[in-house]
Amino acid sequence: MNGAECLLRTLVANGVEVCFMNPGTSEMQFVAALDRVAGMRSVLCLYEGVCSGAADGYARMTGRPAATLLHLGPGLANGLSNFHNARKARSPIVSIVGEHSTQHQCYDAPLSADIAAFARTVASEVRTVAAVSEMGALAAQALAAAVKAPGQISMLVVPADFSWSEAGPPGPSVPQPVLDATDIGRVRQLAGSLHAGAATGLLLGGRTLTKRGLEAAGRIAYSTGVRVFADRNAARMESGRGRFQPQRIAYFPEQAIVQLKGLQDLVLVEAKAPVSFFGYPDQPSFLAPGDCRIHKLAPLDEDGTAALEALAAECNAAPAQVPEEHGSASLWDAESALTPDTVGTIVGTLLPHDAIVSDEMVSASPAVCAHLTKAAQHDFLPVTGGSIGQGLPVALGAAIACPERKVVALEADGSGMYTLQALWSMARENADVTVVIFANSRYRILDIEMKRTGANGFGPVAEAMIDIGRPQIDWVKLSESLGVPATNAKTAGEFEIAFRAALGVRGPRLIEARIQS
Amino acid sequence: MNGAECLLRTLVANGVEVCFMNPGTSEMQFVAALDRVAGMRSVLCLYEGVCSGAADGYARMTGRPAATLLHLGPGLANGLSNFHNARKARSPIVSIVGEHSTQHQCYDAPLSADIAAFARTVASEVRTVAAVSEMGALAAQALAAAVKAPGQISMLVVPADFSWSEAGPPGPSVPQPVLDATDIGRVRQLAGSLHAGAATGLLLGGRTLTKRGLEAAGRIAYSTGVRVFADRNAARMESGRGRFQPQRIAYFPEQAIVQLKGLQDLVLVEAKAPVSFFGYPDQPSFLAPGDCRIHKLAPLDEDGTAALEALAAECNAAPAQVPEEHGSASLWDAESALTPDTVGTIVGTLLPHDAIVSDEMVSASPAVCAHLTKAAQHDFLPVTGGSIGQGLPVALGAAIACPERKVVALEADGSGMYTLQALWSMARENADVTVVIFANSRYRILDIEMKRTGANGFGPVAEAMIDIGRPQIDWVKLSESLGVPATNAKTAGEFEIAFRAALGVRGPRLIEARIQS
Repeated sequence: MNGAECLLRTLVANGVEVCFMNPGTSEMQFVAALDRVAGMRSVLCLYEGVCSGAADGYARMTGRPAATLLHLGPGLANGLSNFHNARKARSPIVSIVGEHSTQHQCYDAPLSADIAAFARTVASEVRTVAAVSEMGALAAQALAAAVKAPGQISMLVVPADFSWSEAGPPGPSVPQPVLDATDIGRVRQLAGSLHAGAATGLLLGGRTLTKRGLEAAGRIAYSTGVRVFADRNAARMESGRGRFQPQRIAYFPEQAIVQLKGLQDLVLVEAKAPVSFFGYPDQPSFLAPGDCRIHKLAPLDEDGTAALEALAAECNAAPAQVPEEHGSASLWDAESALTPDTVGTIVGTLLPHDAIVSDEMVSASPAVCAHLTKAAQHDFLPVTGGSIGQGLPVALGAAIACPERKVVALEADGSGMYTLQALWSMARENADVTVVIFANSRYRILDIEMKRTGANGFGPVAEAMIDIGRPQIDWVKLSESLGVPATNAKTAGEFEIAFRAALGVRGPRLIEARIQS
Repeated sequence: MNGAECLLRTLVANGVEVCFMNPGTSEMQFVAALDRVAGMRSVLCLYEGVCSGAADGYARMTGRPAATLLHLGPGLANGLSNFHNARKARSPIVSIVGEHSTQHQCYDAPLSADIAAFARTVASEVRTVAAVSEMGALAAQALAAAVKAPGQISMLVVPADFSWSEAGPPGPSVPQPVLDATDIGRVRQLAGSLHAGAATGLLLGGRTLTKRGLEAAGRIAYSTGVRVFADRNAARMESGRGRFQPQRIAYFPEQAIVQLKGLQDLVLVEAKAPVSFFGYPDQPSFLAPGDCRIHKLAPLDEDGTAALEALAAECNAAPAQVPEEHGSASLWDAESALTPDTVGTIVGTLLPHDAIVSDEMVSASPAVCAHLTKAAQHDFLPVTGGSIGQGLPVALGAAIACPERKVVALEADGSGMYTLQALWSMARENADVTVVIFANSRYRILDIEMKRTGANGFGPVAEAMIDIGRPQIDWVKLSESLGVPATNAKTAGEFEIAFRAALGVRGPRLIEARIQS
C-alpha cells in the first residue's frame, strides 16, 4: 500500500470516521485511497474554513476528532480562523496538509510556503513526514496528539511523494486518553469554602456544562447557596427548561462585573478566571472582584465533571429542584416586525426537544438566549474563539455528527457571509440544519463597540464601513444558489410559518429574518 | 491627534490612497479617523481574503501599495492566502492589523492569538507598535518596507490602546525607492552569448512584461534570433495583437521542457529559472535542459526593463516588426455549446482596447489564452501564487486602481467560490468588472492531476470529491444575491449577447458560461 493508504488506514483503524476536505494535486493519492479503504466518510467543502469549522462542530458533539484534508500552505491558511475557534473550543482535530514532493521543495514554486509556520499559529503539535516508512507511526502520533486532554489541533504535513511511495503497515492503535482521577484532597479542601454561600462562585467551563456536570453543580448550588456561572465561550452547553442553568458570564465587562460582584472565592472547573472579550479604555479586563480568591477544582485537562460530582458528594448535596419555566406559545403579534426578541420567543417556543443550536448571532444573541433557557432541552454551541464565520460550518459538523438530531444555526448576516460556502455542503449532505439569518444589514455590534473604545461616533465614511446593506444581500437567492431552499420573513407571523415549515422537513432550510433593531 | 489618526495621516501623506478593510472593535479608532483625514478611499470587503486580493490587484496595476485594515490574528488569517499570492506577485502592500490593547494581552481572551506568527507566514517585515509615541515612525517604516524593491508585504500590528491614546505627529516622508542602475558590464558580457540565436533564451518576469520591456525584448529577438519566454506567473503582462509576445512557459512540465529544448544559455530578467508548478513522480521539477547555463541580466530587485533596453542597444537591435494577427469575428456557431475555445474566441474578438484581464480560469486557461494574444491590447493579470480565490478580488482591486478601464475577470467556478464575497464589493463600488464564470461544475484540473500523480483514477468516492455539480451552483442567483446583475449562457450565441451587453454598460456584470468540456 502507498503512504496515503497507510495514513488513511491508520486513521480509520483508530476510529476517525469523517474527513472534511478540499483536496488538490498533492492530496490526490489520499483521495484515490478513499475508494480502497472503507469507513471514512468524505465531506467536500468548497472552502477550507468550512472544513475546519465543521471538524470543530463534529468534535464538540462527539468528543472525537474528525480529520481535515487541506492543500498546501494556502489551503491550510484558509482554514486557520476556524481552527483558531476550534483551538479555543479545545476540539480534537487531526488535520492532514499536503505538501510538495520533497524533490520539488527547493524550487520556490508558486504554491511553496512554510506550511509548518502556518500550522503552528493554531496547532498544539505539528509533524512533517520525513520518510514514507514513518507514515503509519506519525499518523498515529498525530492522532494521539489530537485527543490529548482537553483536545488539540494536531497537524500532519505530508509531502506528495510520501503519499505515492510504497509504505509500511498502518500505524499502531492509539490508546484512548485517560483523564487523571479527581484529587479528592483538593475537593475536600474546596468544600470548606463553599459554606460562604453567595460569596462563593463556581465557574464551569470545558466539558462540564453537560447533563452530569450541571446536575452536580445544581445540587451544590441548592444545598450551599453558592452562585454558579458558565464560561460564555465554552464549547458546548446543555440548556433548556428543567435543567439547572448557570449564569453565563456577560459579554460586556460592566455587566459581568455586576454578575460577579461580592464574590470572595471563585472556584474554576475546567475554566480560566473570567476576562472580558476586548479591553476598553476605562474598564478592567479581569472581571472578578480584585480581592476575590481564585481556586481550581479541576484544570482544563482534568475531568471537571467527576470533580463536581465528588464535590457534591462531599457537600452531601441533595438533587436540585429545578423549576420548569415555559415560554408562552402566543406571546407574539403575527403582524409585528421582527426583532431579536420576537425571533427568540418563537425559536424558544418551537425548538424541538434534543435540538442542537449553533450560535453566531453576535448582537442579537443576548435577546435570543434569554428565551432559549426556557426552550425544550437542547445543546447550545457558543462562539468560542470569536473569529466570525464559525456558525454555519459548526452547524454542518454537528449535523454530520448527530444525523438524528435537528440542528438550528442562528447566524448574523455579517458573520454568515464569511463561510457561506457551508450552505452548499449542507445541501450536498442533506444535513438537517435550519439556518436562521438575522439580517439587519449592519455590523451592529460595532455600533456599540465604536462608542466603547472611545471613538467619537460615526461620520459618513465610518458609517459606511459598518453598513453592509448597500447593496442589500438577498439571503434567499444566495441560499437557493447553493442548493438550500430558503424563504424570507419580515413579520413574526411569517417567521413562525417559515420556522415551523423548516423544522417539519428533514434537510437544510434557510430563513432570512429581516430584523428591525 | 490619537494614534490611529497619526497612522492614517502618515499613510495618506505618503500617497497611500486606498484601504481595503474589514474592521472590528480594535480598529474602530482607525475607522473613526477616516472622517477626519481626507484622501483615503475606504473599500469595505465582507471577507479579508477579498481585502488582500484586491490590494494585490491594485498594486499590480499602479505599482503602488494600498493599505489593508484587518481585525486581529483571525482576521489576518482569512487574508493570508491572497497575501501569499500577492507575495509571489511581489506586490507592495502595507497591512494594518489591530491587536488587543496592551493591558488585555496577558489574559488569553477568545480572540487572543500570536498575530506576528500569522503575519510572518507571508510578510517580509512585521512590526508591532510598542508605544504610541513611535506610531508615526513605525507607520513610515512599514510603508518603506512595502515599497522596497521588488515589492513586499509589510505588516504593522497596532494594539488598540495605541490607537486611542494621544500620539505625536505623523511619521516622516517615505522616499521613493530608487532601483540600482543597470550594470552595463553585465549587459555587455551577456550580449556576447546572444549570438547563439535559438540556443539562447531570455526569460522575462517581474515588471518587464510591459510595453517598454516587450519592445526591447522584441528588438533583441528579431535582431539576434534568441527565443523569448515569459514567466507564466508574473504579476502582469501586457498582451494583445501588435505587441511582441514572448512564449509563456507552459503549466505542465513535459510541455515546458519541449518549449525550452535545445537551450544552451538562458538569461533571466527579473525571473527565476523556470520550475514546474507541482512535482510529479516521473518528471523533473527543473524545466531547462540539464546542461543549460543560467545567467542573470537583472535580479528580482533591479530594473530589468532598463537592462533589456541596454541589452537591445548593445545588440544594435532595430525595432521589431510584429505582425498584427487578428482573430476572426465570425468563427463561432451561435447554436454551438460553449467550450473554453468558444468563449476564448468570443472574448478575444470583443475584448475592448486597454481592458484589464484577471485570469483564474485554471483548466480553461490555455484554450482561452491562445485567443487573447490576438485580442485588442490589454493587461493580463495571471495566477501568481496558485492559491485559488485570487481572480475576483484582483479584478476588484484593478478596477479601483484604473476606474476608466474595463476589467474582465475570467474565473473558474471552483476558484470563484473561494472569495465570492468580492462580488458584493464590486456592486457597492460600481466597479467596472465583467465577470465570466467558467461553470463546468467540476474541479477539472484535478481530473488531469489525478492521473499525473500516479493515482489509479477515480472510484466513486474520489469522483465525488472532484464533482462540484451536486448541487449545481446557480451563479446567476448567487451574483444577483450580492448585487451584481447576472445572466446565464449555454450557447455561443447567448454568450456573445451577454458579453457584448456586459461590455456595453459601466459597472459589474456576471455571466455564467455553462462550459461543456
